[in-house]
Amino acid sequence: MTDTHSLDNVRIVLVNTSHPGNIGAVARAMKNMCLSQLYLVAPRKFPHDEATWRAASAGDILDNAVVCETLDEAIADCHLVVGTSARERTVPWPLLNPRHCMEEVYREAGAGHRVALMFGREDRGLTNEELQRCNLHVHIPSNPEYSSLNLGMAVQVMAYELRMLQVAGELDANAMAEWDQPVAEAEALERYLVHLEETLYDINFLRAEAPKKLMLRLRRLYQRTRLDEMEVNILRGILTSTQYWVRKAKERGEDGGQEG
Amino acid sequence: MTDTHSLDNVRIVLVNTSHPGNIGAVARAMKNMCLSQLYLVAPRKFPHDEATWRAASAGDILDNAVVCETLDEAIADCHLVVGTSARERTVPWPLLNPRHCMEEVYREAGAGHRVALMFGREDRGLTNEELQRCNLHVHIPSNPEYSSLNLGMAVQVMAYELRMLQVAGELDANAMAEWDQPVAEAEALERYLVHLEETLYDINFLRAEAPKKLMLRLRRLYQRTRLDEMEVNILRGILTSTQYWVRKAKERGEDGGQEG
Repeated sequence: MTDTHSLDNVRIVLVNTSHPGNIGAVARAMKNMCLSQLYLVAPRKFPHDEATWRAASAGDILDNAVVCETLDEAIADCHLVVGTSARERTVPWPLLNPRHCMEEVYREAGAGHRVALMFGREDRGLTNEELQRCNLHVHIPSNPEYSSLNLGMAVQVMAYELRMLQVAGELDANAMAEWDQPVAEAEALERYLVHLEETLYDINFLRAEAPKKLMLRLRRLYQRTRLDEMEVNILRGILTSTQYWVRKAKERGEDGGQEG
Repeated sequence: MTDTHSLDNVRIVLVNTSHPGNIGAVARAMKNMCLSQLYLVAPRKFPHDEATWRAASAGDILDNAVVCETLDEAIADCHLVVGTSARERTVPWPLLNPRHCMEEVYREAGAGHRVALMFGREDRGLTNEELQRCNLHVHIPSNPEYSSLNLGMAVQVMAYELRMLQVAGELDANAMAEWDQPVAEAEALERYLVHLEETLYDINFLRAEAPKKLMLRLRRLYQRTRLDEMEVNILRGILTSTQYWVRKAKERGEDGGQEG
């Protein structure tokens, strides 16, 4: 059920913010729109007077902000990770506009899942590697000739969409809200992807000649699928079985046969 | 008809703005969202370095801004005048949320009418007298406990709603619309699932003791993901490699080793 506190399940994650004034502006925008959870990944200057001044009456959001050294810390326990993205990417990712994306976020938060909304650096946004940690990408449909929004403005737009959903009352429960298994946390998914890559090397599927972006494609596939915990267990079980057979083949090869 | 230039019929009118930084932030938000017409009614400080700095690459909006001494000058030739309002008013006025209000604005602008969106002072908003010059009032549904948005943020929200209307039709609706690979056909997916099941038997992962609904769970996983053709090829390639190693392990086992 979506209650008035479901927005507490949504955290705003600012990655490597340069200007403390922007952090303050974000805090104010959040409080105006009933968001409260702010995570700062390696901010350049924080705490800072400029942040406090721009936050106006949202100083409590700054006081309670969680400062992390790495992105992993900020998103490890989240069930849904969303990254803000410019349009052009070498490998496309599921890309939603803020309205559709926040509908998804709001439903998940209402189902008790923890959601991270990631915003990148003022000048360069999120790196490709950071974007690949996300389940979904969201893009504000800005002017193609001047597409770079101020950081605080981008947060305002997302927070506004969430607030509109909150005041509109409850949405229909979606498929994942009534899922039979808990959605896997980001860390579990990451461990699976590491295990997958390791196994693909074991079976000689990942090699120098392999298509360049193979792991990236597999990552995209499993990130967008929103795996549940049992699925992660099944997939890891398959990898473990596969590795058993490879080891066995290779041991036997060393014992007496010729390696292919 | 609504053409791409209809947003040129929408002007942002800032009344008695105190902080030049806010004027700059408004200019940037406007340009980001394809608005261009800025009117300033008796700004306290303009032009100003702080405005120019915050405008970033939207200096042209500031350069072309129309500075007026009175509100009358700024709205005289407009067909629709909209004022941003806090909730409580002694005399109720038609009060819309930003989405509904901007739909109205967008329709009017598309019909060739000039529309003014008025924003008041940072500390006190618009006076009752100014609000009474409006056809419609718009209210951003903010936190009742902290309802006062920064001026730039308020403009951003309205401009964003207008831009969303402008791109509707251009944009997604379907996140997979701009995918880099063709979506796999049902038959290809089915062949993959058969191949997967076969391989899971080969590696002894599917057995009598295996969880009853294992294949069903894997089917659900890959069906909901909407695999593309390249992904199906990659996944099948992994299965083929796995089967190669299992065969090798088993052959060697028959040749000389003991089967486990």
